[in-house]
Amino acid sequence: VRVIGIDPGVAVTGFAVIEGTSGRLRPVAMGVVRTAREDAPGRRLATLQERLGGVLRTHSPRVAAVERVFFSANVKTAMAVGQASGIVLAEAARQGVVVSDYTPLEVKQAVVGFGGAPKLQVQAMVARLLGLSAPARPSDVADACALAICHLNRAGLAAALRGATA
Amino acid sequence: VRVIGIDPGVAVTGFAVIEGTSGRLRPVAMGVVRTAREDAPGRRLATLQERLGGVLRTHSPRVAAVERVFFSANVKTAMAVGQASGIVLAEAARQGVVVSDYTPLEVKQAVVGFGGAPKLQVQAMVARLLGLSAPARPSDVADACALAICHLNRAGLAAALRGATA
Repeated sequence: VRVIGIDPGVAVTGFAVIEGTSGRLRPVAMGVVRTAREDAPGRRLATLQERLGGVLRTHSPRVAAVERVFFSANVKTAMAVGQASGIVLAEAARQGVVVSDYTPLEVKQAVVGFGGAPKLQVQAMVARLLGLSAPARPSDVADACALAICHLNRAGLAAALRGATA
Repeated sequence: VRVIGIDPGVAVTGFAVIEGTSGRLRPVAMGVVRTAREDAPGRRLATLQERLGGVLRTHSPRVAAVERVFFSANVKTAMAVGQASGIVLAEAARQGVVVSDYTPLEVKQAVVGFGGAPKLQVQAMVARLLGLSAPARPSDVADACALAICHLNRAGLAAALRGATA
């Protein structure tokens, strides 16, 4: 299964396309979509949609894994995160990509096996699982990788459980 | 000048296209874009984008007036409002429509002349200014009307002030 993890932001959106086949994880593409600070918010969001749309068309993932956001954190940036997340969800739907969302706790548990793991430990484990020589940078890309891995691990577990029950 | 006021929401987005010429306000079109509750969030946002895009193409407003949102209100609905607002801003930008945003206080002051005006008073004044026989329904449409009127009044005032200075 090919999965894209996406960490949305108006300024920087991290993405990571990862292929999961029989327990192996293969990074296909990763990077960021950046928008120009001097542009109006709507223009930045339209740019995000165009470029992310290009990434989806190029790599044709079946699933997009995103963070389930609650806005407990920073009220000031909440609006911008919500706007960017809306663009990501709409563009995925437009291209027939199924969206799965995970809480930060679920991501850490799936990647490190421990929900209280610090961010640096998650990034190091992501690099190890994907065979990268160093943690993915910027952190938006590492977060996107972790989301994709989370989906693949949980999907693999679900398939194994179905097999055991059958 | 032709202005569209937009009150974004994932479930219901109100819009009102209003033409302002030499102090007169003429309602051109108003209504709502509704999305299906049973659809996934991304599908609902994609539907909002398609239908609002159709409204913009049909009526070609020069400016979109939207509310400046701060998320002081309801944290639970904040994410959905942010997502819908992101779609509105991006689609306006894609179609070359300039976005102006106004606080609820600015809207009330522009429409009623008093920032503390209750919602029903704003709706009654909107109906009077547009020559409607009854307040616009649902309230999302009335809010969209108020936003468009706010932009037209302030733009008219700005033009008058420029004239006085010239």
